[in-house]
Parts: sequence; C-alpha cells; structure tokens
Amino acid sequence: MMTLAGKRLRPALLLMGYELFADHLERALPAAWAVELFHNFTLMHDDIMDAAPLRRGQPTVHAKWSQTTGILSGDVMLIHAYRHLASVSPVDIVPELIQTFNRVAIEVCEGQQYDMDFETRTDVSLTEYIRMIELKTAVLLGGALEMGALCAQTKQADARNLYHFGRLAGIAFQIQDDLLDTYGDPAKFGKQVGGDILQNKKTFLVLKTLEVAPEAERQALATWMQTDSVHLGEAKIKAVRALFDRNGIPALVAQEKERFQKEAFTHLAAVQVPEERKVLLRNVVEELLVRDY
Amino acid sequence: MMTLAGKRLRPALLLMGYELFADHLERALPAAWAVELFHNFTLMHDDIMDAAPLRRGQPTVHAKWSQTTGILSGDVMLIHAYRHLASVSPVDIVPELIQTFNRVAIEVCEGQQYDMDFETRTDVSLTEYIRMIELKTAVLLGGALEMGALCAQTKQADARNLYHFGRLAGIAFQIQDDLLDTYGDPAKFGKQVGGDILQNKKTFLVLKTLEVAPEAERQALATWMQTDSVHLGEAKIKAVRALFDRNGIPALVAQEKERFQKEAFTHLAAVQVPEERKVLLRNVVEELLVRDY
Repeated sequence: MMTLAGKRLRPALLLMGYELFADHLERALPAAWAVELFHNFTLMHDDIMDAAPLRRGQPTVHAKWSQTTGILSGDVMLIHAYRHLASVSPVDIVPELIQTFNRVAIEVCEGQQYDMDFETRTDVSLTEYIRMIELKTAVLLGGALEMGALCAQTKQADARNLYHFGRLAGIAFQIQDDLLDTYGDPAKFGKQVGGDILQNKKTFLVLKTLEVAPEAERQALATWMQTDSVHLGEAKIKAVRALFDRNGIPALVAQEKERFQKEAFTHLAAVQVPEERKVLLRNVVEELLVRDY
Repeated sequence: MMTLAGKRLRPALLLMGYELFADHLERALPAAWAVELFHNFTLMHDDIMDAAPLRRGQPTVHAKWSQTTGILSGDVMLIHAYRHLASVSPVDIVPELIQTFNRVAIEVCEGQQYDMDFETRTDVSLTEYIRMIELKTAVLLGGALEMGALCAQTKQADARNLYHFGRLAGIAFQIQDDLLDTYGDPAKFGKQVGGDILQNKKTFLVLKTLEVAPEAERQALATWMQTDSVHLGEAKIKAVRALFDRNGIPALVAQEKERFQKEAFTHLAAVQVPEERKVLLRNVVEELLVRDY
C-alpha cells in the first residue's frame, strides 16, 4: 500500500481532474491540499494501528514521539483538511465538496477496518479483498478526480465518470502492486521483492490461489503461510513463487487487473471534453498501470 | 473532566446562543449535532490515550472492540461532524462556521496533548494548568455559544462576547470541578470524593499549594503524591485535605474560580440583546457554577 505514498498523486489527480474542464488552476489548490492532508492523516493513524516503526524510511510519529502525539497530530491534520475545503470559492460548491470528501473519507476508514480485520481472519474471499482495496485506496483516487471536477463546476455526469475512472484504476493499481511485490524487477521495485510472501500477507495472489488451485496446492500454500519466515528468506519466496507459477496465478491476476483497467478507461472516454484535454491524465494513469512483471 | 459528559451541554449551549438572537431553532440543529459529535470523538480518542477501561460506567470502545475500532470510530465521528456543518443554511455561513469549529477543535487537541504531557512532568505551573483546562474543555463551551451566534448571523462582537463568556465560565467550571473532587458533598458529587488525591492528580489545589505553601508543606505534599495510595485510601485523603486546609487552599482556589466566573458574566452582559432574552442561558450557567463545597 505504500508505493503511491510521497508522490502527491492524490492532489495531482485532483488538479488534473480540474484542468479537464477549467482554467485558473489555483481555484482547485485548497481542495488539493485537503486530499493530501487527508491521505497523510490516514497514514499517521494507520501506522499506529499497524504498530509500524518506519514510514518512507523515517521513524513514524507515534514511534518517535508517542501514541498520543500520533493520534492527535492525525486528528489535527484531518481538521486542517476541512480548513482548506471551507476556503474554496465560490462558497456554493463548499457543501457538495465536503459531502463528496466525507463520503470517501468514511469509506477509507471502513477499508482500513477491513484490512485490520483480514489480518486475523482465515476466510477472506477475493470479492472481500477487492472491496477492501477499493475502500482503503481506490475511492480516494476517484474522489480526488471527482473533487477536481466539482471545483470546476462541471456536469455531474462528468464528475461521476471521473470518480469511477479513478476508483477502477485504483483497484487495478493495487492488484498490480500485489503482482509486483512477488514478480517485480528488483531494480525497479522500491521495496524488497517477495516481502508479502515473507510477511504471510493475504494478497490477491494468495486469495486467487485459494480460489482456483487444487486442494493439495491450497494445503501447501496454507502450510507455507503458517511458517515463520525469518530464517527461511529466499527459499520460502522461491517455493511460494513456484507454487503460484504452477497454478497459472500471475496470468490470472494480470487478467483481473486488466479487466478493472479497461473498465476504468471506458469511464474516462465518457467524460464530455475534447480528447486532447485528457492526454495528460490518461498518460499519467497509464504510466502508473504499465509496470514490468 | 467527566462531570460535563453525557448531558448534551455543548449542543444545549449552541442552541441557547442561537436563541439569544433568532427564532427557527431548527436552523441551529446541524451545528449542535456537530459539537456533540466532536465532543464524543474527543472522548473516544482520549480514552485510548488514557487507556481508560470505562466511560459513563460502560466499557470504552477500544476496550470492548479494539484500539483500531476506537481510532477509526473516532475519526468517522469527526468526519460526520463536518457533514452536519456543511448542511447549515444559508450556505454563506458554512465557511465561517467551519473556521470557528476548526479553531476550537485544534485547541482541544492541543489541550489534550498538554494534559498528557503534564502526567509525566513535575514542573507544571498554575498558569500552564489554566491554559490546559482552557484549551481542553473551556474553548469548546465558548465555541459552541459562538457557533450558535454565527448560525443566527448576529454581529461579530456579540459572537466574540459569547465565546469569551463560555470560555471563562468553562475555566471556572473546571476549577470548581477540582474543588468538588476534594471538598464536594458525597451525596451530590457523582464520583468518589477524594479520587484526585488517590490518583495523585496535579489539580488546581495541588498546584496552588506548590505555589503558595511554605517549603515544609510543599515537601509533605510531594511525599504524599509519591505514595502508592491503593491501601491508604481514606487516611491519605484526610491527610492531604488537612494539608490543603492548613494552607488556606480551598479559599484561594474558590477566589480564582470566582475571578473567572465574574469576568465571564461581564461578557454576557456586553451582548447586545435585551436582558430578558439572556435569562435561560444565565440561569443554566449559574446553576453549573454554584455547587456546594
């Protein structure tokens, strides 16, 4: 979930969403600040729940200062997000902007609760997993685009199409992230390839295997996932990757990713502005979704 | 800090602030919801920081479910507070309402951070303590009144006077709360009289003693506060109360309370509406501030 971090992707999407329809980009800046602050608020609180010592290579707030400071600093960042939203002009669009922001914000919190619940559950389905990544990550990408459209006071249908474009592309991105964690090029992937396997994470690859592989293979995977990995390292990564390969999992997962990706771009195509205005946004999202694996 | 809880005091203040200036009380209801939700959000997060097992006699959210649920439920309550604020009409007042709410909300978070810091500090001054209770509790009472005035679209001077009325009355209330915890009538006080002494809390009484009492008395108090109290019970309460009495602390603290209370009511007097409109608000606040001790 971290590879989108630190790149200001959400405010960038919001500004690109605005620019599809209107000039005077500065009008969308307060809302762009709000989504970036909100994203960082979620990271700060998530790090407490995950008891994470590091974020982007730096000590997390709760680890460096205290849990109190982590909770309260997150709370204050969320409050500041609304400070920016309340400063958008014209004032008529503030309520709708806040309602959109809130709808997405609540969903992100729900997604985090699912993610935490999934850690201890053993019966997570692929459908539930997709719903979790949709809520935890994808709706905010869609919401950022939608809010950009709202700042430009565009038609509601365009705002909704942009929302679905971001949401579906976000799901595709998270599926790709799971693929890259196991099959990425170590030279290009920011984290340790195989990290999810070592941490026994219930990724899309694992859940797909549990859905489609024969009983013996599912048993084998379950056994690996109950194995303490610290001293196994590369051997465990290699074995689990071989198990995925034998069962054709990478291709199946890539298909799912492409399904969401394709659906995403139908929504971008439906947005009622000349195609040349969409070039930047399309290129940026395509760039995010075309990774080697 | 708990005696104000569960009484809907903050929304009641907001509605009374509105009624000073305008009819159609329903216009102020969304803002009243917002302050009540905000207050409960702070309680939920404070309980995590305090590792409190109970609130109003019921298990706290984090104790009953999980820390994750406590953090996220609080976050979502805060988001819902803004949902109500964004629904206030006319829309022109929404930004100012949110800026006022935010100013106070951030101060409340700061007050909680001070309160947590004070637990481990040994050099807290009375001035710092007053600032802490002002931020943690009093500004929200003032803010609720101010927001009521904003909903009624009254003059800024009136809104500011109401804010200071609530803020100063809130400080007086918290000082009184410290007095009652040690000197209250057990039949009327909702909690165990002497609880602060048993918990070695750095109350207004303690800090006043450390400010005015002779060296030997200050030493004696410090020794009591390092004493594990569980098995001492009533004996410790009696001894520390006697120490306060010898040094004239209750009268000094009551003087401080009355100073804030008196200043509070000068601000209510300055509000430019006929005195008969202020009767309900004055009576409610006087009632809160006239307790037996």
